[in-house]
Amino acid sequence: MRATLIHGTRDIRLEDVPDPTVQRPTDAVVRIVASCVCGSDLWPYRGVREIREPRRMGHELVGIVEEVGSDVRTVTPGDFVIAPFVLSDGTCPNCRNGIFTSCLHAAGWGSDDEHGLLVDGGQGELARVAMADGTLVRAPEVPDDDLVPSLLALSDVMGTGHHAALSAGVGPGQSVVVVGDGAVGLCAVLASKRLGAERVIAMSRHDDRAALARRFGADDVVAARGDDGAEAIREMTGGIGADAVLECVGTKESMQQALDSTRPGGRVGYVGVPAGGPELPIGQLFSSNVTVGGGVAPVRAYLPELLDDVLAGRLDPGPVFDTTFALADVADAYRGMDERRVIKALLRP
Amino acid sequence: MRATLIHGTRDIRLEDVPDPTVQRPTDAVVRIVASCVCGSDLWPYRGVREIREPRRMGHELVGIVEEVGSDVRTVTPGDFVIAPFVLSDGTCPNCRNGIFTSCLHAAGWGSDDEHGLLVDGGQGELARVAMADGTLVRAPEVPDDDLVPSLLALSDVMGTGHHAALSAGVGPGQSVVVVGDGAVGLCAVLASKRLGAERVIAMSRHDDRAALARRFGADDVVAARGDDGAEAIREMTGGIGADAVLECVGTKESMQQALDSTRPGGRVGYVGVPAGGPELPIGQLFSSNVTVGGGVAPVRAYLPELLDDVLAGRLDPGPVFDTTFALADVADAYRGMDERRVIKALLRP
Repeated sequence: MRATLIHGTRDIRLEDVPDPTVQRPTDAVVRIVASCVCGSDLWPYRGVREIREPRRMGHELVGIVEEVGSDVRTVTPGDFVIAPFVLSDGTCPNCRNGIFTSCLHAAGWGSDDEHGLLVDGGQGELARVAMADGTLVRAPEVPDDDLVPSLLALSDVMGTGHHAALSAGVGPGQSVVVVGDGAVGLCAVLASKRLGAERVIAMSRHDDRAALARRFGADDVVAARGDDGAEAIREMTGGIGADAVLECVGTKESMQQALDSTRPGGRVGYVGVPAGGPELPIGQLFSSNVTVGGGVAPVRAYLPELLDDVLAGRLDPGPVFDTTFALADVADAYRGMDERRVIKALLRP
Repeated sequence: MRATLIHGTRDIRLEDVPDPTVQRPTDAVVRIVASCVCGSDLWPYRGVREIREPRRMGHELVGIVEEVGSDVRTVTPGDFVIAPFVLSDGTCPNCRNGIFTSCLHAAGWGSDDEHGLLVDGGQGELARVAMADGTLVRAPEVPDDDLVPSLLALSDVMGTGHHAALSAGVGPGQSVVVVGDGAVGLCAVLASKRLGAERVIAMSRHDDRAALARRFGADDVVAARGDDGAEAIREMTGGIGADAVLECVGTKESMQQALDSTRPGGRVGYVGVPAGGPELPIGQLFSSNVTVGGGVAPVRAYLPELLDDVLAGRLDPGPVFDTTFALADVADAYRGMDERRVIKALLRP
């Protein structure tokens, strides 16, 4: 089969690799219907994370089960499945607590699992899925093709935006600010409205992203950033700041802007991967009683609920995929996102 | 009247000062029945915080109202009142959100209010209380003298322990660890049990404090600290850590111990005043989905509820005051706490 590998900075190649097979009784092999490029894939692409050897890429996928091991109970060949961006057993104490990303046997796409067996990346034609029962969520039937983008969004960005909103305690009557206008930030807008937020303010200075934020329910869009951005938010929220602020970027500056935009006693929900490890200023948190929660989103926990909403037509995060590429053009997909011409690239094998 | 002033490191003096009077229509003057020395009073005492000029001390008090201004509505002369450690108007947006410590007109005991008028310290005979309606909570009747310690505890340490527990989401069925065996940590044990925690583990290596922790409901006491302490907690909690950890110290080491003792997806509630501003390691928080909440406790918000429980005999934090001093011996009270011979000193004018 063909699969995407990264060889170095801005060096993405589609190559022939061995077809995956069921290697353990808990495995499934999935034929990928759609995958995509994540904002976090741009880190190694841009050289922010060193690439020591060629590595499989992609951690978001939907597909059709081709084959299952003898111990797999919840999916069978022919099922349409959605895979979250971390593989988990579904049974360990952390999974039972809903923190599937801290599964004691967690595995990552494109890396070896704990048995030393490769889990294929998502940006390819097929993937061996370890711990299939714990990892995959099946749709009740094979969906119409036009639902594929929305379903693929559940593998990461929609669940991640939802996690930001839950972590910030978003609920009815609340004022919510979303810092970050990437796919996750846009999904955080959608998630906040879905959870009943009274007013959602999106921070964006890109017309296309601001337009999508409004389509997803944002009541206001603020272009200012940093201190000016926080000041603008305080002016819009009775002088004290918003009840909930969702940090969907991951830089020290974006986190500071989020903290400065939150009212005393309010909450920051963050899902931006901390770039370079900005530390949190505890003195400011202490005096303001601002709570900070979030982290790597356990999207597996949210998949059943969000899937129901997508299939019922109540939730449509699909538009975050603004451009579709053939898998053969995966390098173009990376380039488009790197140059910010593309919000999020969908890949079709 | 006599009042306590600090003149320099380990230099506490009881001095004659002018009797306070009602200066604004929202003022009350309170005759102090009991006050106490706070762990945070030891910071200037030990020279950790510079003392530029002599300053009134004490921010915890209960007393009898002597006189009120013409606009005061909720207390009248003869009422027994409890004062929280921050004065607040009770009507600003932050007060309405329950974050009285972020009151837009907040004032502190022993400092000038926003009108440039001194609010007396708690460690004296009388105090002018600004914003009396917003600040003071009256008991339905003058209580028996043996209830005074429990009522005085509501002015700070009990409400602060309760805030730590609420901030960590403590509730029925949960495992809770309390880091810190000072008066606040001990009250956090009591608060956790009151909120229904299934198992409370107190971290203490002092026999007297450990005994009081057990009296307050701790199921286990762990003497180990730092990495060893966190490892002991993980061993006691199925290998993953506790659901909720209450950080009641405020050092970088105690916060790290708290974070390392919390299970993925669990919560740290912190009320230890951050000494020297330890920053929070966001990389660890991100990967573990541990939420950090808390800060300077808005005890005014909790006073009515906790007062009901004390008066009904359901809550008795009074034993945190292990030693009573006459106000004339206030310097001895500081010395006893500084040398850790005393857990918390009660002062009787």
